[in-house]
Formats: sequence, C-alpha cells, structure tokens
Amino acid sequence: MASNPYTLYYSPGTASLCVHWMLIEANLPFDAISVDFATGAQHSEAYRRLNPTGRVPTLIVNGEAHGECTALLMLLAERHPDRGLMPAVEAATRPQWLQTMIYLANTVLPAMRDWFYADKDGPAEGATAVRALARSRIEGAWDLLDARLAGSAGSHGSPSTGGTPNYLVGETLTTADLLAVMLMRWSRDMPRPATTWPHLAPYVDHLTALPSFQEVCRREGLSDWPPARDQ
Amino acid sequence: MASNPYTLYYSPGTASLCVHWMLIEANLPFDAISVDFATGAQHSEAYRRLNPTGRVPTLIVNGEAHGECTALLMLLAERHPDRGLMPAVEAATRPQWLQTMIYLANTVLPAMRDWFYADKDGPAEGATAVRALARSRIEGAWDLLDARLAGSAGSHGSPSTGGTPNYLVGETLTTADLLAVMLMRWSRDMPRPATTWPHLAPYVDHLTALPSFQEVCRREGLSDWPPARDQ
Repeated sequence: MASNPYTLYYSPGTASLCVHWMLIEANLPFDAISVDFATGAQHSEAYRRLNPTGRVPTLIVNGEAHGECTALLMLLAERHPDRGLMPAVEAATRPQWLQTMIYLANTVLPAMRDWFYADKDGPAEGATAVRALARSRIEGAWDLLDARLAGSAGSHGSPSTGGTPNYLVGETLTTADLLAVMLMRWSRDMPRPATTWPHLAPYVDHLTALPSFQEVCRREGLSDWPPARDQ
Repeated sequence: MASNPYTLYYSPGTASLCVHWMLIEANLPFDAISVDFATGAQHSEAYRRLNPTGRVPTLIVNGEAHGECTALLMLLAERHPDRGLMPAVEAATRPQWLQTMIYLANTVLPAMRDWFYADKDGPAEGATAVRALARSRIEGAWDLLDARLAGSAGSHGSPSTGGTPNYLVGETLTTADLLAVMLMRWSRDMPRPATTWPHLAPYVDHLTALPSFQEVCRREGLSDWPPARDQ
C-alpha cells in the first residue's frame, strides 16, 4: 500500500507542519496520514509503537519510524541534496545553518512547548510561572532573529520588502526558514506575535507567499495566518 | 598567533565540555581559551562580539565564531568524517543519530537550563515551578535513554557491563554519547542523578573511562564525576 518512499503522520498546524511543508516544497513523493488529536489518536497503542512520545511528526523512512521535526528536516535535506534546502557540508554558510537549526530546536521550540503545554506537562499551579519564562524566551528569540534579518539587509535585501533579506541562512530557502516560520505561526495569538517585529513581518509575508506554504495550508485546512497587513 | 584550525572558548564543566572532549577524542589541533565565569568574562563586550548570547562554547572556525554545543559537535563530525564520530549520511543509523542529537538538544539541554538557571532567566518567585517541571522532564529523559540502552542489550552488549550496550547510536562512539554524558554529568547533584538508572550507570562508567574523557577532565580541572560505585 505504501508505495511512496515516505509516510508522514501529521496533525494540522502542529510540529509536523514544517516537515509536511518541506515534502511539498521539495516535491518528494509521500503518503500523509492524519493523526486525530481530537480523539487522542496520538496516545493510541498503535501510534505509540511508531512514536513512544505520542507526538507528531512521525516519518516512516525505509520502513522505520522517526520523530523530532528538526531532525526530520535535516534528514530530508541531506537525503535530497539536489533540492538545495541546506548548504552543502563544505559551504561557507554551513556552520550558520547548523547553529540556526539547533537554536530554533533548543530555544524556541521548548519555550513554545512550555507556553502551550505548561499545565499539561507539569502541575497546574506552576503553569503561570513556566509560561511567563517561556514568553520572555520566545520574545527574546524574535528580537535576535529580527536583528539578524535587519543586520544583513544592506547586502542582499529584496527591494520588495524594503531591504529585509528573505532567508535566515544565506540567500536561498533552507530548512531553517521552514522551521522558523512554523514557530512564528505558533505565536499568532500570543501577546506579541512574531509578525509585530519590523523585520519578521516582511520575512513572514515573503515565506508564506510560497506556493508550497499555501499548498500545505490547503491540505491541513489552515487559513488563519499570516494576518493581513495594512502596508 | 592562532595557527590551529580551531579555537575553543570554554568554561570548565559547562556546555563547552562536550566540544572540548570531542576535539581531544578526534585528535584535532586546537587552541583553548578559558572564559572566566567568576569575573563575568562571558558578558564582556569582547566576548559578546564573538557570542551575543554570552554563553560558551564558542568555536572559531575559519575566522568566524559559532555557538551551540550540539551544532558544533555536528559541524566537527562532518568536517572530519574520517574520525567516525557520526554515521555517514547513507548509513542505516543516520536517522537515529540525527533524532538523538535533536532530542538531547531540545529536551534535555533546555530542561537543564531551567534546572540551573530558573531564577536567573526568569523571576525568582516562579523558579520553584520551573525547576519542578524541568526535573520531571530530565528524569523522563533518563527513563527513555535507560530503556533504549536496555532494549538492545541482547544484541550487542558488552560482557563487562552486564549486557548494556556501550553507545546510544549504533555500535561505535558518536557525538550523541559525548552530548549525553555531559548532560548526565550535570545531573550529579540532582535528587536522582542519571547514574542511579540501572543501564545508565554502566554506560557512564564505560564512556568516562575513555582516555579522551579523562584528559578533558584533567585540562578543565574536573574530578568529581562519575561517582565511585560499589559493584
């Protein structure tokens, strides 16, 4: 039945979004199986056999199940180097790509987990404190990414976005953008969404205008982001 | 002055330890510069220019400064594939290596940050709640890693460790072990140190017996771990 090389288990809008987006952007053949969070399917025995953490995404590669969205983006990028979604090992931008992937994975992603799941992962009475720290870390990350995008604006900014560069690493789309934009989307109902930062707003506009992003939103039924902007 | 290809900025026992260990294990030529946390040197203007986060490690590669210990382990491993500290891209264990590196980076490492820095990163009154959640996540990670080491004991365990396999990924040392052992060391004064888990104790014993670990401890002046065991 699964004749495609990849099978993705996903739930709309969750951490599987960046992997789903990448499979479409890279034009890789895959099967997609929705895990129904509404019925708790992620905790079912069958799913736990694939992914003991009960989280998505899970990607089946060569018959084996693997998790962790950041790792899956890196895995797909290196299995398909012709798609150009990571700098080559010998490229000058390779260290920055690795550092950015890890930064997003170990700083923004866990803080998002805290923001959304503080009262599920830990005792309810501690959730306010956990979420306050998470918010400060997330906003600190937007500061840092905004400054990075601002800092290199002179050298290779797009005229259409007022000089803000379009990508986090180098001058082409990489997995770092897919991961970052997914995380920025998650901030849409936070007190200060990422799109309120001056250089993140045009960055998000540019990335979410990609046909692959619009397609993954169509397939996952997402239509609430990014917000329309006045200018 | 810096004639070696790498310059490591480190502070004893911190997140730089795994990179320092790797440079020694892989027999790579490098200069090491101690950043004196006692005098706040990590916050100096000069150091912040190298690493805006004010953290260690920073590794200078081709004249450029890079951070994030997990990313640096991956960078060094792929720049020196002959050292064998990661599975090749086409290896069957490659997905598990990527997944394990990211798991340690986005689950254990941030929880350790919370455990040790809750009252510095956030308001003091929330620190107890943050640390409680951090502890549960860290212990959950030891459960998971212990189960993984136990699960494959039959297939390639070392007789000297009662059947526990010696490595987290495949049958040879990888960067995942360097990162995991550093994190396990950080738990030494926690209520339940990693070495109290049945399969983590012999794993730690084996890894810390490596001459490269003993050498990095000698250079950093660390002598407090692992604990002596009765059996």
